[in-house]
Order: sequence, then C-alpha cells, then structure tokens
Amino acid sequence: MRPLGEFEIIREFFEGHEAGRDDIAIGVGDDGAVLCPPAGKDLVQVVDALVAGIHFPIGLSPRAVGHRALAVNLSDMAAMGAKGAWATLALSLPDSDEHWLADFAAGFFELARRHDVALVGGDTVRGPLEIVVQVTGFVDHGKALRRSGGSPGDAVFVSGTLGDAAAGLRRLHRTGEANPLAQRFLYPQPRCELGQQLIGWASAVIDVSDGLAADLARLLQASNCGGRFCLHDLPLSEALTNVCDTDESRYLALHGGDDYELLFAIPADRVTEFERIAPNLPTPVAKIGTLEEGDAVSWFDDGTPVTVAMTGYDHFDRAGD
Amino acid sequence: MRPLGEFEIIREFFEGHEAGRDDIAIGVGDDGAVLCPPAGKDLVQVVDALVAGIHFPIGLSPRAVGHRALAVNLSDMAAMGAKGAWATLALSLPDSDEHWLADFAAGFFELARRHDVALVGGDTVRGPLEIVVQVTGFVDHGKALRRSGGSPGDAVFVSGTLGDAAAGLRRLHRTGEANPLAQRFLYPQPRCELGQQLIGWASAVIDVSDGLAADLARLLQASNCGGRFCLHDLPLSEALTNVCDTDESRYLALHGGDDYELLFAIPADRVTEFERIAPNLPTPVAKIGTLEEGDAVSWFDDGTPVTVAMTGYDHFDRAGD
Repeated sequence: MRPLGEFEIIREFFEGHEAGRDDIAIGVGDDGAVLCPPAGKDLVQVVDALVAGIHFPIGLSPRAVGHRALAVNLSDMAAMGAKGAWATLALSLPDSDEHWLADFAAGFFELARRHDVALVGGDTVRGPLEIVVQVTGFVDHGKALRRSGGSPGDAVFVSGTLGDAAAGLRRLHRTGEANPLAQRFLYPQPRCELGQQLIGWASAVIDVSDGLAADLARLLQASNCGGRFCLHDLPLSEALTNVCDTDESRYLALHGGDDYELLFAIPADRVTEFERIAPNLPTPVAKIGTLEEGDAVSWFDDGTPVTVAMTGYDHFDRAGD
Repeated sequence: MRPLGEFEIIREFFEGHEAGRDDIAIGVGDDGAVLCPPAGKDLVQVVDALVAGIHFPIGLSPRAVGHRALAVNLSDMAAMGAKGAWATLALSLPDSDEHWLADFAAGFFELARRHDVALVGGDTVRGPLEIVVQVTGFVDHGKALRRSGGSPGDAVFVSGTLGDAAAGLRRLHRTGEANPLAQRFLYPQPRCELGQQLIGWASAVIDVSDGLAADLARLLQASNCGGRFCLHDLPLSEALTNVCDTDESRYLALHGGDDYELLFAIPADRVTEFERIAPNLPTPVAKIGTLEEGDAVSWFDDGTPVTVAMTGYDHFDRAGD
C-alpha cells in the first residue's frame, strides 16, 4: 500500500470539520482561511507547541496527543475568559502512519466538537513529531481576563484538584497501564465554561500547566503582589491521597504540572458573595490563600510556616527542578 | 555564562514589538493575546511550519531563517489579497544560543516592520529546530481571493521571475557563498502589495512556493479547468540565464520552488485593460497561458507541444520528484 501524500493526509483526516459554525467563509484547502468575526467582540489568540518526548512521552496514544494539542490551548483561552472558535494545526510527522493519524484526528475533533471549535487551516510536513495548535476565539470587548489585575487583599482560588495528572503519568510510566489518575494526564479537561463565568468576578487568572507553584509565581509577579498560602487548603482528590502520602500528594500538587485548572484572584469585598455562588460553578473551586503587598510569598501548614520553592518547568533552564 | 531560560528568551528577543499598531489590547506575555479587529473586514489566517533540514538547509543563517518563517506566511496572505496584521511564533530550539536567537529575531522583525505586522504571541520550547508562524490579517468583507475562481478563457499571469531561488540555493550548496541568485532563496519578498491590488481583477490566485508546475496544477484543479501554457513565456531573470542554459533555467522555473511569486487568472474580457495597468503594478507580471475547459494541460515551446510534469514537492510522497 502506497503511503499517503501530504495533500491526501489533509483531505482524508483534516478537511470538512467546519460544520456547526457559520462564521467560516473559506476553511481548510486554500492558501488561508477566511473568517467573519462577530461585531463588538475582542479576539483572543493562543498558541502552544507540543514536542514528542518533552511535552508528552514518546509512544503516547495518538488519540491522547490529539486531545492534548487542542486542550492545552483551550485551557489558555479559559484563562482569558474567552470562548474558542477557530483552530489551526501545524503537524510535523516522521511518516504518514494512517492509524496514528486517524487516532490523532479522533482525539482532536472529539474535543473540538465538544467546545464548538472548527479546524480552519494547517500545515502538514515531514519532520520530528511536533504539534503546534493555535486557537482564536472571542470575548466581550474590554472584558478579557489577565494575570496582572490582582491586588493586595484579593482571595486566591484554584479549580478542581491538583497533582492527579502528575501522579497518573508516574503510574503510567511505571505500569504502562491506564488508571483513573492517568486519565487526568491523558485527557485534560480545559475549564472553558468556568473561565467565561469568572468574567465580572476575577481580578486575575492564569491556567495551571507547569505546576501550581510556578504558575502562582507568574500571577503574583504580573499583579505585583506577594501572598500567603496554606498547604492544607490545596484541593487534593481522594484518588490521589489513596495512592500517595500527604507529602507526596502536596509535592505533586505544587510542582507536578499538567493540571490545566484555573488559578484566580477574587477582590476582597466580593469574596463572600463569590463563595455563595461558587457551588453553582461548573467546576468546584477552593480558596488557598490571599494576595499581599510586596513580593514575599509565605506558605503555612496548619499555621506553621513552611518553605515552598516557587519554581516549575523551564525548557531551557538546565538547573531547573 | 548561564544559558537563558525560556521566559528570559521571550523577554529578551520577542516582547515589545507591538509598536505601530493600535489594535492590540494585550500582546506577548499573558496566556493569550487580545486583539481588536476592524469593523467590516474578514479575517484571513495562514500558518506554515518550517523544519530544519527540510524547508531550509541546516546551518542556514538564522537571520534568513527568521525572515523566511514570516515571508512564507505573508506570501500566503498575498495570495488571498489580504494585509497581514498579527503574527504568532512557535519556536522549537535545541538550545538557547543567544547569537542564533538575536539574528533570527533581527530577520523576523525587519520583515515584520516593513509589512506592519506585530508579533502578539508565541511559545518557545526545547526540541528539534522547527518554526511555526501564523499570521492573521484583513481583507474587505467578501473580497478574499481564492484558488477556485478561474474560468475557461481566463489569461494566466505570474509575477516576477521564476527559478532564481532554486538556482541560488544550488550555488549556495556548491560554493557555500552568498550570490545575487541566492538572495532570492535567502530573503524571499512576499508580493503583498501586488496581491492586494489584484482584488477586483483576479478570478483565482495562488502563491508559487512548490514550483510553478505544482502550484499551477493546484489552481487548475481548484478552478476545474485545464489550460495551455508556453514555456518561452516563463519569466526568467538575466541572472538566471547567465548561469544556466535554457533547458535548466526552464526546469528550475517549473520545478525549483521557493519563488514566492503570485500566479493568477484574469477574466478574458478584462485582459486588455489589465495589461494596460500592469506596468503600474508593484511587481512586473507576465502572461504565460490561458485556462481551458476540461482538465487537459498542454505546454508549448514556440508552437511545438512539449511534455511538462505537473508535480512538485510532497512531504510524504516517496515516489515524488
């Protein structure tokens, strides 16, 4: 059987997925896509590159790779409070393995359909396995959430539970078998609906991709704040604490990464009101601390000060953790 | 000296290049960019992936790589008749070589400034050298040019001269030295202004990146046409014909690739008028043939039928030329 050519790959696996959106004049297949943005909205654009062996293990299920390539971008959109609309995909592949491509496309489009995102363009080339997805979406004019709006006194919340994905990946490495925790690594669920509902509430938002400690440090720096945080308030799942002791669970929650939860600040005078509506949010949220003046960051465990390194993964930092 | 970290790379080389555009609410540095599209325009999005050793020789001047990464996208924008506005850059790098990064950024931003395109987002990761750029721009609503609008009787034109880049690359490989032809390969000049001026004239447009023969075949297929074309009408530069004989020059013009010229069709009843205004276009254009009914493609050399393979580079076609 002849291997598929570049244009056959595009036709077979990536064309014709624009159904359900009426704002695409030209989709996949010309030199570019032609799109009709809605009036009165700002555009939000995000882009993420995934390299095999760095952002996901070599040999990971192609369905999970396809899901992840879109999910990490939708998580960035969620952190801006935006709703994704159009995606492009640049796929660099060592060969044109049809089974790999079919599973990759299945994972990508399953998530795309769920979030009403259409693939409108792309590029398929031969090279080391690497996937770059860009998503463009909308937010009401002037309403985009950012990292930099936090003020001293704001309460800091995080959604869902932390550390599950990292624990799942470890167990996947060790046993090679899927497990409930590994699902959090394999199929991260971007908190898009929560992000959109945080508009009008949150003063600052970031998504947790490199571990809570590192992403919290970024939010603090952008907002010119320090803060005090409580280890015992970190939201941990029963699935995690069943297989890891407290220290390991907290370590993974702080530094494990791949959580794709939202970390956000709520102004002090609205915290009570926010906590009243919080049970109706699409994802549970937990208060983990408070922003403070200055740049000092302190952590406590049941009232006792503890030391937490505010670092995470840096692709080029050879001394990194 | 400590190598630069991922976020230092972004700050040092890629932040703060939004000057000159007032439609960027948030640029590089948050989870995503926030952009304000103009009313009454359609958006055009293009994306291209460049892999070292495939799309450009390993060891190519980083300034030329930076230029090329943006130029190939602007050439796609030109083929849609659109004006580029915002770019994102996903850069996968084996290490954080500051000299390489500085030269790459110089090549990228020099071209970006010339076309008033701002870098608004990106991702920098460690991996095999690969660059993915996406450009978003504008075109008047409903006016985007496409490949598919050609009709039998339309005259087919191409801009500039063909084959120079391929000849230049050959000589660069052979001698390792820059030469006037090699400049066409190293610093392709996207025909953005020409593309925008073709709105209202051209029935179909494509940019010539994989060689005239291959890209002409795509335009014909999209327009459901065949055609007749003349080898002796292919526009060849004196620089090319000085170093290659007629057969080799024509071969490079047809199959060499990397020209980044525009290939377009003009309706039969407007050809005379178009030829009258053509001398005022920003790039010279040459008529090379005519669209015909059916799917047959015939080539002539001074009236004699000749055979031309209508193929070009396909990343996954192992039997390709």
